[in-house]
Amino acid sequence: MDIYTQSIKLHKAKGGVLEIKSKVKIRNHKDLSLAYTPGVAAVSIAIAKNKKKAKTLTFKKNSVAIISDGSAVLGLGNIGPEASLPVLEGKAILFKEYANIDAIPLAIHTNKVKEIVDIVKKLEPTFGGINLEDISAPRCFEIEQQLQHIGIPVFHDDQHATAIVVLAALLNASKVIKKPLDQCKIVINGAGAAGTAIAKILKCIGYSKKTCIPVKELIVVDRKGIIYKGRKGLNKPKQLLARITNKHHMQGDLEHALYNADIFVGVSKGNLLKKKHLQAMHDKPVILALANPTPEIDPKKAKAYGAAIIATGRSDYPNQVNNVLAFPGVFRGALDANAPRITNDMKIAAAHALAATIKKPTKNHILPNVLDKKIAKKVAKAVKNAA
Amino acid sequence: MDIYTQSIKLHKAKGGVLEIKSKVKIRNHKDLSLAYTPGVAAVSIAIAKNKKKAKTLTFKKNSVAIISDGSAVLGLGNIGPEASLPVLEGKAILFKEYANIDAIPLAIHTNKVKEIVDIVKKLEPTFGGINLEDISAPRCFEIEQQLQHIGIPVFHDDQHATAIVVLAALLNASKVIKKPLDQCKIVINGAGAAGTAIAKILKCIGYSKKTCIPVKELIVVDRKGIIYKGRKGLNKPKQLLARITNKHHMQGDLEHALYNADIFVGVSKGNLLKKKHLQAMHDKPVILALANPTPEIDPKKAKAYGAAIIATGRSDYPNQVNNVLAFPGVFRGALDANAPRITNDMKIAAAHALAATIKKPTKNHILPNVLDKKIAKKVAKAVKNAA
Repeated sequence: MDIYTQSIKLHKAKGGVLEIKSKVKIRNHKDLSLAYTPGVAAVSIAIAKNKKKAKTLTFKKNSVAIISDGSAVLGLGNIGPEASLPVLEGKAILFKEYANIDAIPLAIHTNKVKEIVDIVKKLEPTFGGINLEDISAPRCFEIEQQLQHIGIPVFHDDQHATAIVVLAALLNASKVIKKPLDQCKIVINGAGAAGTAIAKILKCIGYSKKTCIPVKELIVVDRKGIIYKGRKGLNKPKQLLARITNKHHMQGDLEHALYNADIFVGVSKGNLLKKKHLQAMHDKPVILALANPTPEIDPKKAKAYGAAIIATGRSDYPNQVNNVLAFPGVFRGALDANAPRITNDMKIAAAHALAATIKKPTKNHILPNVLDKKIAKKVAKAVKNAA
Repeated sequence: MDIYTQSIKLHKAKGGVLEIKSKVKIRNHKDLSLAYTPGVAAVSIAIAKNKKKAKTLTFKKNSVAIISDGSAVLGLGNIGPEASLPVLEGKAILFKEYANIDAIPLAIHTNKVKEIVDIVKKLEPTFGGINLEDISAPRCFEIEQQLQHIGIPVFHDDQHATAIVVLAALLNASKVIKKPLDQCKIVINGAGAAGTAIAKILKCIGYSKKTCIPVKELIVVDRKGIIYKGRKGLNKPKQLLARITNKHHMQGDLEHALYNADIFVGVSKGNLLKKKHLQAMHDKPVILALANPTPEIDPKKAKAYGAAIIATGRSDYPNQVNNVLAFPGVFRGALDANAPRITNDMKIAAAHALAATIKKPTKNHILPNVLDKKIAKKVAKAVKNAA
């Protein structure tokens, strides 16, 4: 039985992978009157007097809503809110297992920016944080932007957790190839949520120059080729990419973009990176082929074509790039710091803490094992300190 | 330390009483790929093809959102969404402990009917049912009404669970006093969510005549006295009460209403029932003094003034009337039946099943013990059969 059939079987047998648990037992009248009425009235009154107390006396202390409209579920596109639920549930159990955070899947039935923003704002009293998930670009940028000042952290995982893990991977890769990251030429293929966020973190757009060193040469490529200033039909987020990247105003396709590049970051589609692409690149390039489940290039082929370091989203090859290395620690740190938002300094701190979990990076070890649950604690500590 | 101080201490020590639990362990790459990516993609695809499968493959199978705007929290009034959280959490753990339902507290930051309705509709993909909680009258009626056809059960606990438990209590009380319930004169004091729902179930308004026998004489009293047709300033729900009750067009105060009444149902305020009120009533009346935490009359006094049966919301006296006798079983039955809504027949079935849990009712035993978790199973079975 393949992994897909097994997963359906598991979800059917269990009725989903998530459940609620009571921290207290209800065995007698006293238990009932402490956890519920009449005792709970005192807790309600205390919060009515000072609503900040919800952060110490309730679920809000440790809860994160995982919100999706089902518009960009895994690589499957806009398959609807119900179909996003299994992903949100999976994410929720990772929040719990890695960072002891109580995360709630909330798949919502609308694709409208304003409606999603309104719902999240109105749900704020219940949650300590909001994780936006599987929402398609460019709406995801706008939604996140409009929610930055609601008093609790709002974080679009597909953008920032990916950017954090990629930055950590590249920091370590640059040590292995012995070339400072800011001196590398980097090409990102894919200009959706992940590609855009990776470009912004690599160019330090919105980031403090104290903590972030921008790379000198970065090119972003989408389905229509290299993104350049003045290209017709660019939406606003891509216009920004055109402004901050591609300083030599290159035009052309991916192969053109890759000329003499040190690093390829693919957040696009499987099997699109060929021999000619690697040959166009600088000697012994770094290849992050992150398309899931099929990478942009098979790691064995990439190696045969001369890649020095290869990372994918897969667990059956070295250097697995997975958001679980970032989001549990980022939220744990933000909740522990009682931070009203997740700043860019916190993201940079997370990336450096993640990279630093590996004392001596090697070509097959630029990121820690995704199963290592100590990672989240280290990331959390750095994020809390940066908050 | 009193119960209130202890409850605050408990909530602070635990950070709320609720947590998330994973049904699966993440120990290795296989666990991760079954519960999360890539395996979960197959579950998402199956649901994208047929969204009904969310009810078997996800959290939606067994989940209920407990939604409040914090406008009528316990007896504390409109104290805001944050302050409602401890009550919603307490309720959530009762859902789990009594009926193994995964309930999620959602305190929302708006009091507007349209906005609450819109949010619930958009959250429908995630949940198997919606429990409306601590929302003030008359908005609670409208909100519930507008949500009856969204495809999953929407149930305002403060109305219907209370009505179900009161009907069960009265069915058994009528056996004890040997007078058919429909022949009794009943006075309800309080015309909010609970009082209105109790009046409707006792008069079978919207209920099938096959399963519901209307009581002949019912009077509802609010803060301004007896509700009668033509009284000035009645809102729509009270206009309905005026039409369906008080067939002799009585006017006056509670004492007038109680003349020759067999049964008093108080869902109002503590300590308002005096000796004169009981003396106005029929010999050996039945007193349901349900105000919380202070009943309309102290049970000892009620007994001294001639009451045959006394029930309160308190656990330190016999005959505790508590919604927990109804809502876990009602939702369990509705979820098990995959019912699109909770019909009035299901409510009547719940009341009769609850009453029938007591083989031989006596004056100190018209309702089962609220700690008896077998009750929910019996109620669930009856509700499922009626669905």
